[in-house]
Amino acid sequence: MLLSGGLDSSTVLAIARSDGFDAYALSFRYGQRHDVELAAARRIAEHLGAAEHRIVDIDLRAFGGSALTDGTISVPRPGPDDELDAQIPVTYVPARNTIFLSFALAWAEVLDAADVYIGVSAIDYSGYPDCRPEFIEAYQAMARLATKAAVEGSQKLTIHTPLISLTKAQTIQRGLALGVDYGLTHSCYDPVDGRPCGTCDSCVLRARGFAAAGLPDPAL
Amino acid sequence: MLLSGGLDSSTVLAIARSDGFDAYALSFRYGQRHDVELAAARRIAEHLGAAEHRIVDIDLRAFGGSALTDGTISVPRPGPDDELDAQIPVTYVPARNTIFLSFALAWAEVLDAADVYIGVSAIDYSGYPDCRPEFIEAYQAMARLATKAAVEGSQKLTIHTPLISLTKAQTIQRGLALGVDYGLTHSCYDPVDGRPCGTCDSCVLRARGFAAAGLPDPAL
Repeated sequence: MLLSGGLDSSTVLAIARSDGFDAYALSFRYGQRHDVELAAARRIAEHLGAAEHRIVDIDLRAFGGSALTDGTISVPRPGPDDELDAQIPVTYVPARNTIFLSFALAWAEVLDAADVYIGVSAIDYSGYPDCRPEFIEAYQAMARLATKAAVEGSQKLTIHTPLISLTKAQTIQRGLALGVDYGLTHSCYDPVDGRPCGTCDSCVLRARGFAAAGLPDPAL
Repeated sequence: MLLSGGLDSSTVLAIARSDGFDAYALSFRYGQRHDVELAAARRIAEHLGAAEHRIVDIDLRAFGGSALTDGTISVPRPGPDDELDAQIPVTYVPARNTIFLSFALAWAEVLDAADVYIGVSAIDYSGYPDCRPEFIEAYQAMARLATKAAVEGSQKLTIHTPLISLTKAQTIQRGLALGVDYGLTHSCYDPVDGRPCGTCDSCVLRARGFAAAGLPDPAL
């Protein structure tokens, strides 16, 4: 399962565990300006009892093209009533979920695992193309042709997206019911001294989610 | 375009150039035991006039599962008349082409390029699942849903596989017609002091290709 250390993927880890799986959590040090999230991923993996947690180094700054991996592109600051998904924002990282899922596919094959979990949602999200259900479906179809396990084995690889149709508030409620301590998670794209900025897309989505759930954010 | 420094991908670079493209060549230092191939990739990129050549570090030894990335698994030595593609050999690297294509997709998006070239062949190959036409077709379908360029742009991403139906001998003949100096390429999985072993799958396929073309291998 892909674990960024944010609210969504932390919830997914709890869901995978409650689905009865041993969870092998995979994170990436990809040159993100918010690599403080990796410390959150470590905390969450331990908190929720992951069987193993690996951090893979892949420097996507080599390609750039995103505010998250290129220090010369500013992180946008939406206004309080702005629609976040009117267009794909500059925080989109080219092919990021495609790359992340491909490493998950490799590890899954070595582990002889047929279930991959990812915390994408098509609701309360930033409009990234690689978070949409049609992308995930196409990825799964490709993955079922890609590996030795897929070709020779009896297991069909499944990409699980348990948050795909949940609002952020519903995700929070689901996680709380499963015992997730959101105080351990980190969502901000552009932290200041490791603390959330409060004004980036990711902070705004998170704040709206807790507000809609009628709860305070324990990370603040 | 994906460039390993071997016979096939070097030919593909020449074909992409002859198709009229500026070629951006991408190689990977992935923990392969034959990383001497990267020096060949550098030579070939210069020899065939690539616009740029990048080597990305991704250590697939973290996952293992292949004779190419795990020093404890031996590279097989086929006999002179053995069928190489009777089953998927231990030199298969889990999800390797899926991972490589995903990085190519990221770079293509940043370059605003819609054409990706890869030197897979379904003939005279080692039986790897991620070299088959059905895998490439599924990858292309996924890629067309994966990126901002795919969703917002007018260009449809195409994965070009100019070698897919060529025998090794035909590939060599095609490359020679385009001026490829195969003396600069490296194919061996398990080189000894940087020289081809002559007995691994890759050396055997290469030797059979030159023999079928009626030509000596200039790298020997």
